[in-house]
Amino acid sequence: MTHVDGVWRTLSAVRTARPLVHNITNYVVMNSSANALLALGASPAMVHSTEEVEEFVDLAQALVINIGTLSPAWVAAMKLAAARAVARGRPWALDPVGAGATSYRSAVASDLALRQPAVVRGNASEILSLARATSEATRGVDATQGSEAAIDAAKAFARRIGAVVAVTGAVDYVTDGERVATCHNGHPLMTRVTGLGCTATAVIAACLAVESDRLSATLHALALLGLAGELAAERASGPGTLQMHLYDVLAGLDRETVERGVRIA
Amino acid sequence: MTHVDGVWRTLSAVRTARPLVHNITNYVVMNSSANALLALGASPAMVHSTEEVEEFVDLAQALVINIGTLSPAWVAAMKLAAARAVARGRPWALDPVGAGATSYRSAVASDLALRQPAVVRGNASEILSLARATSEATRGVDATQGSEAAIDAAKAFARRIGAVVAVTGAVDYVTDGERVATCHNGHPLMTRVTGLGCTATAVIAACLAVESDRLSATLHALALLGLAGELAAERASGPGTLQMHLYDVLAGLDRETVERGVRIA
Amino acid sequence: MTHVDGVWRTLSAVRTARPLVHNITNYVVMNSSANALLALGASPAMVHSTEEVEEFVDLAQALVINIGTLSPAWVAAMKLAAARAVARGRPWALDPVGAGATSYRSAVASDLALRQPAVVRGNASEILSLARATSEATRGVDATQGSEAAIDAAKAFARRIGAVVAVTGAVDYVTDGERVATCHNGHPLMTRVTGLGCTATAVIAACLAVESDRLSATLHALALLGLAGELAAERASGPGTLQMHLYDVLAGLDRETVERGVRIA
Repeated sequence: MTHVDGVWRTLSAVRTARPLVHNITNYVVMNSSANALLALGASPAMVHSTEEVEEFVDLAQALVINIGTLSPAWVAAMKLAAARAVARGRPWALDPVGAGATSYRSAVASDLALRQPAVVRGNASEILSLARATSEATRGVDATQGSEAAIDAAKAFARRIGAVVAVTGAVDYVTDGERVATCHNGHPLMTRVTGLGCTATAVIAACLAVESDRLSATLHALALLGLAGELAAERASGPGTLQMHLYDVLAGLDRETVERGVRIA
Repeated sequence: MTHVDGVWRTLSAVRTARPLVHNITNYVVMNSSANALLALGASPAMVHSTEEVEEFVDLAQALVINIGTLSPAWVAAMKLAAARAVARGRPWALDPVGAGATSYRSAVASDLALRQPAVVRGNASEILSLARATSEATRGVDATQGSEAAIDAAKAFARRIGAVVAVTGAVDYVTDGERVATCHNGHPLMTRVTGLGCTATAVIAACLAVESDRLSATLHALALLGLAGELAAERASGPGTLQMHLYDVLAGLDRETVERGVRIA
Repeated sequence: MTHVDGVWRTLSAVRTARPLVHNITNYVVMNSSANALLALGASPAMVHSTEEVEEFVDLAQALVINIGTLSPAWVAAMKLAAARAVARGRPWALDPVGAGATSYRSAVASDLALRQPAVVRGNASEILSLARATSEATRGVDATQGSEAAIDAAKAFARRIGAVVAVTGAVDYVTDGERVATCHNGHPLMTRVTGLGCTATAVIAACLAVESDRLSATLHALALLGLAGELAAERASGPGTLQMHLYDVLAGLDRETVERGVRIA
């Protein structure tokens, strides 16, 4: 089976299974993540209280932990949920928003990265920050050293934490520590809509719920969102209309469009 | 006066009175609830701190309590606000999001349902869960038993708590424990937009502010939102554009459109 | 240089500098504020925990403090952030949402207003409430006395707290306590979209990051948002589509459009 076949199969599986995706995510993107998951065909839920996160993890097929708008009470819930997901064999995806920006944020991101996420997705700066913080070996790697250095750091980081790591940007790099795959889908206008990185992590979680190969699930998710962004950009006249069209396109993607449009390697 | 006349009268009254609707609601839908209330002609406010909820209840004409993203501090505020609303004779509407999913969520929903809401609106699963939790008589009713059983449970639940209960879905059922009315407006695409159930509860609260018959207010609200969804679906190419058109349509509904389109019985 | 030249220069400077705007804002508008800032060309971040707000202020070029959805933990973070911004010479903008509605809200707004914001933006009711609460001299001014009285109160309030004060509405008034400038851009449909006042404050903060004259920065921000609203209204069929077009227009504003459309005096 080719990668492209895989993307369509993953999307079909999400639409059929309608996996419940449990999100502990930031205030900014709760609504947009939920809409993207619904458009994809998944079933989103946002549940964050320590009183109920563990019970809810048991109901869900995948979990997202996104540290965009952090506070100690939420971090406590994130740790409980991550532990339960691991105990139950549920895949969980970490979005280390802003890792490296403040010491608190970096510490929380590093702590969570060591709690066995299936996938960590961030931009180059976030992943480099995490890689540096969790491994002496990658110290000295600098965001200004370019993507080659970032990919080497991501591979070492992936091996160290036993997760798939996705470094997203104009080109997305996905690695399990050995293999490195790339996705070339996407559109520059997507960077002008808030939270599409966070949306990518939510879509990854939905794909993890139906595809057990974590590298494939991650790559398929990024291809689907990137392709939807490209097609939405054709209909849009700016970032506002792009976001609405993105949900329409995600909901309507058919096999021919996916097979023609996906650019992964 | 026919039901259809009543729907238009209620909408006109909201537009004229511009009732202040106080929302203690979940993070996911705060923005979309506010936009729906503004489009309808009401005046929304989101206020949740225990330091000020009671004072704010005094200013508002109706209150929404929605447990979508629960935590103990918010539950404390919900209880204070509900008590004040009852003391002041303000109608309040309960949205028991996810009742039945976790024990914490079920306990909070049941507790609130017994605090004299004017209306409780949920899907069949949520209402059945609440009905079971608050009354021995409905134990054994199961979501798989179909809507007839759900309606019987809703009627008993409505009598027990002294509220109007709305079970929304492809067809909406509204009961005060004796009468059962139905609304057939709505469109399947609405289920692909996050939070339209929560939006329905907010619209119900706005209608309660201007229509003292609680069953009528609830039915009118569901008809208006459902009709707007149908008309928006005609303009939309998916869930993203549906949401935007929904607000446009709500803001522009005229008497002829309402009288022609409302399907309640 | 004319005012109109100034507006274009400010917009160009935001697009070039891409200032990081730190928002401690309410749950309702986090997403829409972020999208507006991105559309304008700025770089938004929402960070509210006491564990990291001070460190984040150091990274940002401007700060927004918006009290829309208040609670004590957030107020503590607001005070820390405001103090740090002042200590570091970063401009910060206060949005006293709902000042006057409850005693808690009024007290928090007054306290923050005395912590050296660069700009305070609110509607006439909010500014009058703050002006009354912070100065004996303006007691007795009443919202029903019309905008002349409101402007006198705003001038006195601006002098007292050493800030620029913007009273926004159908016409926007901006004063530093001595000068009063007006902006006539905007469209009535903007009042049917939630949070566009909050968005105005966020845009003011972005402009403060690149324009040291606080009155000019405020006036330019209000003109840009108002003009974008006018042009979006031409494309829109209601409040839902208005919001999407608003981001598109903001992202696409060119010099000719700005020079032709800005109405400030």
